[in-house]
Amino acid sequence: MSQLDGLGDWRRTHYSRDIAPGIQGTEVTVFGWVHRIRDLGNVKFVVLQDRSGKCQIVVHRDRADRGLLERVERLRTQYVIAVRGEVRRSDSRFGAEIVPKEMKVLNVAKHPLPLDVTGAIPVELDKRLDSRVIDLRRESTQAIFRVRGVVVNAIREFLTRRGYVEVHTPKIIASATEGGAALFQIDYFGRRAFLAQSPQLYKEQLVGSLEKVFEIGPVFRAEKSHTRHHISEYTSIDVEEAFVTADDVMRLLKDLIVHTVDVVNRRCRRELELLSCGPPSVEPFEVLTYDDALDELRDLGIVVEWGEDFPMPALRRLGRQHEGFYFIVDWPTMSKPFYLQPKRDNPDLCEAFDLMCGWVEIASGGTRVHQRDLLVRRIREQGLDPRSFEFHLRAFDYGIPPHSGFGIGLERLLMRLTGRENIREVVLFPRDVERLVP
Amino acid sequence: MSQLDGLGDWRRTHYSRDIAPGIQGTEVTVFGWVHRIRDLGNVKFVVLQDRSGKCQIVVHRDRADRGLLERVERLRTQYVIAVRGEVRRSDSRFGAEIVPKEMKVLNVAKHPLPLDVTGAIPVELDKRLDSRVIDLRRESTQAIFRVRGVVVNAIREFLTRRGYVEVHTPKIIASATEGGAALFQIDYFGRRAFLAQSPQLYKEQLVGSLEKVFEIGPVFRAEKSHTRHHISEYTSIDVEEAFVTADDVMRLLKDLIVHTVDVVNRRCRRELELLSCGPPSVEPFEVLTYDDALDELRDLGIVVEWGEDFPMPALRRLGRQHEGFYFIVDWPTMSKPFYLQPKRDNPDLCEAFDLMCGWVEIASGGTRVHQRDLLVRRIREQGLDPRSFEFHLRAFDYGIPPHSGFGIGLERLLMRLTGRENIREVVLFPRDVERLVP
Repeated sequence: MSQLDGLGDWRRTHYSRDIAPGIQGTEVTVFGWVHRIRDLGNVKFVVLQDRSGKCQIVVHRDRADRGLLERVERLRTQYVIAVRGEVRRSDSRFGAEIVPKEMKVLNVAKHPLPLDVTGAIPVELDKRLDSRVIDLRRESTQAIFRVRGVVVNAIREFLTRRGYVEVHTPKIIASATEGGAALFQIDYFGRRAFLAQSPQLYKEQLVGSLEKVFEIGPVFRAEKSHTRHHISEYTSIDVEEAFVTADDVMRLLKDLIVHTVDVVNRRCRRELELLSCGPPSVEPFEVLTYDDALDELRDLGIVVEWGEDFPMPALRRLGRQHEGFYFIVDWPTMSKPFYLQPKRDNPDLCEAFDLMCGWVEIASGGTRVHQRDLLVRRIREQGLDPRSFEFHLRAFDYGIPPHSGFGIGLERLLMRLTGRENIREVVLFPRDVERLVP
Repeated sequence: MSQLDGLGDWRRTHYSRDIAPGIQGTEVTVFGWVHRIRDLGNVKFVVLQDRSGKCQIVVHRDRADRGLLERVERLRTQYVIAVRGEVRRSDSRFGAEIVPKEMKVLNVAKHPLPLDVTGAIPVELDKRLDSRVIDLRRESTQAIFRVRGVVVNAIREFLTRRGYVEVHTPKIIASATEGGAALFQIDYFGRRAFLAQSPQLYKEQLVGSLEKVFEIGPVFRAEKSHTRHHISEYTSIDVEEAFVTADDVMRLLKDLIVHTVDVVNRRCRRELELLSCGPPSVEPFEVLTYDDALDELRDLGIVVEWGEDFPMPALRRLGRQHEGFYFIVDWPTMSKPFYLQPKRDNPDLCEAFDLMCGWVEIASGGTRVHQRDLLVRRIREQGLDPRSFEFHLRAFDYGIPPHSGFGIGLERLLMRLTGRENIREVVLFPRDVERLVP
């Protein structure tokens, strides 16, 4: 193996996107990966990529010193290099290039590479996920995760500005509550514990003091599902608030989505371009009732029985009718978890909503049950045993206020914001653990 | 059970802290918990608490209407109420009070309450944690979690402004890598998986593309430890950056701590008052070498063998010498994980640092090994098997740059910022799962 250079006291002065005609003559130090090498005999062009983009380095063999030349000859794509040199205007598509004085080779890369990072050759998602570290050198893949960072930040800023307190609730829980989803079991010092499927019960307890809370964190569902919008570990954005109803938090959620789409449109122009997509429309943000959706589907020849959830083909069909964001409200009480409040004037329906974007369910929420008696009754009606909710019910002995909230699936929202069709595309490392599934 | 009122169309117009002489004559709607009731025969004083503080409601029995009076008579502490009435100046310590026109009783609370929430009677931490929902009505407990929200937000803003991208790495992992800490095992669809003890290996892979990343999320350690600064699930703030060394990220960490302490001092005055504490000093922010610390301890009569970690009594003693924040640098290579870079001029020491605050280790970090060969050698030297790092080592085949980073234990930082002595005080719900430990 050839000798690698150390970083020493070299530090980046410019990102590659800063290398422009305007700084002609400036001495710069850039770091990055060799994206492409073009050899024209006496002149060698090296395209360097860093997280900001790309720039070009031009080496004239007859003018470069020996140490520099020796390093340049060794280069292969994806080697990690540092370059010190002068910026000069050029007629290339870059507008400017770096004429290097010194170069360091900081690390090498094994060849052949497992996949093409230039974007010239299309690569299957499976193959990309198998080599995520290399896949992340593709500008379009990086763009997804930069959008992801911007989205998380936009949501958090929005909620913080409105006075919601960020909390962290336990991910290891003692009892398999909530019902519905299958849970992962943990060996907790020889006893059985579970991974939390959501912060639902904890956030409901917290409105009894902090009043307005949110959490952004991992949730876990032991569903061996292979659909393109399910994954066993994902990120949930949970919001819960005291003294408000489903209508209030629906308005909040709508504002949050409109704000987030706006921030993405403003701050992620380059990323959206790399991904050849634009976020879905926030107009007209329709509100359908569950019965409306049933009727609409029936007219399209798809029959869903009242009380059932919408199966995938129905969702796909609904998504073709409603391309942007829309709410579905007035769900059958039987179709929703025990903690949702039945309507006073018609207890067969509950104060629940789903936020859809096309065919994908992005969020769901509603008014919660805050009275202990009703909660116990609802738990029983759902075929669950109130004794296994002892820890949770105890909180409701001590003045839990009326409250409402919702949970957003961050990855599903991101799928729609970045125009991706498979949830694994917007998750950094889904593959490692998925290998285990028989 | 007496009938509860519904929220209806009532919405909060003011928090209790807004009830002041300046809005005399204004009609307000407030929500909250009955904190205290004082009956003077013809006049009844109800102190209402919400998340902003407290205000007083005055009911004159001879002037109140029957519906209102009936409700007031039913009240007990911690009932959830809504009050509509007029603000008027008063000579009470509140400066103003509400003369109610209407009242709703939104929920009740079982008596006797499991603990005193007024702060008048001291309560053991164990008892508080057993009834966390009620404990969180204590203003001092709420203050901890408001500071927690501010701290998380300050750190995230700081890192985002400096260009770090927030990421989310898997918490369920396929192999028990990293070594050191004991891991929790999960049943992953019949196969064995683990809960991540840190995002270390993933964040190191991400510097190979996103370059500057951070994550704030849960980490899991299966250590059945009962010390006051250990807990099996905590929140880690992980930062990793390409093309920099330990010295660079130490400066970053120092700036981050100085910024966070400053934000807490500015934005959490009321909370710090409620907690009767001030954050520790960020002056002089000393830098000790590991050998300095050893010498200092020896002079104090505590002998730690070179290469060993500091045991608790040594840390306590060091903490008495250095009360604020300070770094310990130049650690023995053998005492740190395999991914830390040995020094070029003395490989027995490595480019690692710990950030201490008094006796508590708050953060640790360093320059990482980025060369595959050295990484394999270091894994072997630590008695680990490179084959079990196959997934991780593969990333190092493809141009991982020189990089450095650190991880902060959020709860430990919070202990010090809020003057708490037990890590469980700064965690919302540590008790639920701890019940399981035999």
